[in-house]
Amino acid sequence: MRNGPTRPRTGGSTADQATVRRHNLSVVLSHLRDHGPRSRARLAGETGLNKATVSSLVAELVDRGLVGEGETERATVGRPGQIIRLDGEHVVAVGAEVNVGYLSVLALNLRGQVVARQRIALDTTALEPALVLARLARLLDSALVGVTARPVGVAIAVPGLVEADTGVVRAAPNLGWTDIPVVAEISRLLGEPPYPVLLDNEANLAALAEVEAQGLDRGGDLILLTAAAGVGSGIVVGGRLLRGAQGFAGEVGHMRVRDDGPPCACGRTGCWEAAVGLNALLAAAPEHEPARTSAHEPEHDPLPDLERRLADIGERAAAGDERVLAAIADIDRWLTIGAGILVNAFNPHLLVLGGYFAALRPWIAGSLREELRGHVFARDIGGTRVAFSPLGFSGPVRGGASQILDRVFRDPVLVEPVDKPLAQEETV
Amino acid sequence: MRNGPTRPRTGGSTADQATVRRHNLSVVLSHLRDHGPRSRARLAGETGLNKATVSSLVAELVDRGLVGEGETERATVGRPGQIIRLDGEHVVAVGAEVNVGYLSVLALNLRGQVVARQRIALDTTALEPALVLARLARLLDSALVGVTARPVGVAIAVPGLVEADTGVVRAAPNLGWTDIPVVAEISRLLGEPPYPVLLDNEANLAALAEVEAQGLDRGGDLILLTAAAGVGSGIVVGGRLLRGAQGFAGEVGHMRVRDDGPPCACGRTGCWEAAVGLNALLAAAPEHEPARTSAHEPEHDPLPDLERRLADIGERAAAGDERVLAAIADIDRWLTIGAGILVNAFNPHLLVLGGYFAALRPWIAGSLREELRGHVFARDIGGTRVAFSPLGFSGPVRGGASQILDRVFRDPVLVEPVDKPLAQEETV
Repeated sequence: MRNGPTRPRTGGSTADQATVRRHNLSVVLSHLRDHGPRSRARLAGETGLNKATVSSLVAELVDRGLVGEGETERATVGRPGQIIRLDGEHVVAVGAEVNVGYLSVLALNLRGQVVARQRIALDTTALEPALVLARLARLLDSALVGVTARPVGVAIAVPGLVEADTGVVRAAPNLGWTDIPVVAEISRLLGEPPYPVLLDNEANLAALAEVEAQGLDRGGDLILLTAAAGVGSGIVVGGRLLRGAQGFAGEVGHMRVRDDGPPCACGRTGCWEAAVGLNALLAAAPEHEPARTSAHEPEHDPLPDLERRLADIGERAAAGDERVLAAIADIDRWLTIGAGILVNAFNPHLLVLGGYFAALRPWIAGSLREELRGHVFARDIGGTRVAFSPLGFSGPVRGGASQILDRVFRDPVLVEPVDKPLAQEETV
Repeated sequence: MRNGPTRPRTGGSTADQATVRRHNLSVVLSHLRDHGPRSRARLAGETGLNKATVSSLVAELVDRGLVGEGETERATVGRPGQIIRLDGEHVVAVGAEVNVGYLSVLALNLRGQVVARQRIALDTTALEPALVLARLARLLDSALVGVTARPVGVAIAVPGLVEADTGVVRAAPNLGWTDIPVVAEISRLLGEPPYPVLLDNEANLAALAEVEAQGLDRGGDLILLTAAAGVGSGIVVGGRLLRGAQGFAGEVGHMRVRDDGPPCACGRTGCWEAAVGLNALLAAAPEHEPARTSAHEPEHDPLPDLERRLADIGERAAAGDERVLAAIADIDRWLTIGAGILVNAFNPHLLVLGGYFAALRPWIAGSLREELRGHVFARDIGGTRVAFSPLGFSGPVRGGASQILDRVFRDPVLVEPVDKPLAQEETV
């Protein structure tokens, strides 16, 4: 896989013809993603390309391991020609995440199906960034060890301000990171792989995953609230991420929403994060058996600390623990106040509660719209739909992998033909 | 002037050629706006159009009263050909505003120069909407009575939720208006004019005026805070207005920023508007001689009530009136808190304080950035530039007129040839 300009292996000889062909490869591949498997004849009819061109394009996509010929399905018996479908075998797109208390990796095949997923508890805030990244590289290796498909890219999510073009994390306060060259380091650790390694903010990537999961209309506006130790948001306006002047858009955790309240990690008082972050909940409803992750925790721990703690809180709430229920009610109150501020300012088509907020669903879903109504000026909260994320804590890795897939759908020639590496091996 | 498809008077005969010509008319007219007067030869060189085409396009633009031949300027003596410049005589674009306590009209010529301006104090909240609109129509007539140029459109600004496509004000709580068909009514009162009558939210139009006044980069993000009785904002993201799901984006006056505070006109407690609106200032620093506008106030009142009140407050603050200074300090505090929330969420390139906030500049400008720093997570408030609006209360009418001009620059054939009405009169 490469990033630069590419000559297609078949097709026209001029630059213009090559550009048109690349575009048409994208049209056919995206059509199969958006409309499902179908015959060459149907692809030609629906895309407006002629049949000979479609056959040639499909041949190239097969060659690159992006589509395959499936058996004729029962439902379509009698239709002429074989069914072309997205290939689920040859390529994978990888999302990775570094966050407070855990590392996470997820790989999607071209059909958007999860083919690998690993997460480990790790006290990322206590370890040196270089050690954290070394563990992430090993996790990437181990997650992909049983996967025969070729990676076509890795996108890394970090909770903080990133510089996408240089691949440097400028500031991730909850990790204690400043100016860490994540992309350069991971690329080195992976042995300078032939695929791209990208970097973005975790809330931004999670918001993109949510656009897909919620089926947001093209050009729509969405706010995803993410919450663990920190609280942030990924904001999509007109179908595109809102990044702002220096990439700080969506730093809603530090909106000042109250006069008092517990001190925030940022040193201020009154921050939304201090009122609704996971630490606020844990402080108000301390655990029965305090347990903390440590750098020495066994790496094969199957259940990250975060989810264990949430499960504990959920069990106690379900059992009617007054202290836990009161703590959740307090989170709910401030969550609605902050969400109301954002809905007043953005009037988004969709507000999605993600991260640990989604785990509070059983206790807050019932009253949420009614409470929001109290804080939003527009009648019936301005038509904003409220949803809970179905993605748990996998939003950032899923969004990262989706971004990588999106690159492939936009320009399929970024993926080298399948047999090339094998052929080279054979000649050695 | 008309809105529908138009055949150019010269040029190609097919639909495609007509489209290309309309586009090229826009290119030439916009080039003159953006780069100033210049010769046909230079226009051709800079736009890439051939000289014969430019001559034909210029002839049509002259015909429509949009450009004229100026004298050759001293600085350019020796250059071949005459200088073409935007016409300042033949057409005007009109902005109008209905707001609490006043009506306002402003007309710009094609060069963006103010050619007419009128404002009257009127107790718009006490009068029937139909009477307010009748007064607005008369104000439009009287403002344009000495103007010989033809209006090419009127844009009406209202503080509330408008439906641009139907021309109906859905809800303007500070005026007490619900479902008022403003465009239909004004069009009727003006005798169904040949030019379009448009409607938009006042903060939105003021934000567009600010994009121009502040020289915001193309594709930049800007938040304009407007304040009088109500507090609102116009938000520009990527160079375009953020409208949201139902047009309610920017309703920041009702962000809940505090637990207590005075009750808001909307019935809630803790709204930003109740903390920083003009009424909060006036309540904390009551006037020496209470004076209220009434529907029976003489219409030739040269100075609307709002500006008189602000001047009074300014004088007392300058004289060191402790009560007024304390009231301003309190406004300043809550203004910075609310602005900090928005800067955290949007990280805009530019935050503009408009409306009556701009009148507080002498007392708040010095400390504003420093105070904002205390409420914004990103280092040095994320690179957001803070500015005060230079437009006073004329932002909405100026933005409205600019929107009308923008339509003309985008499609000059919307403006009928100049001599057409005269020729028709002669044949009568």
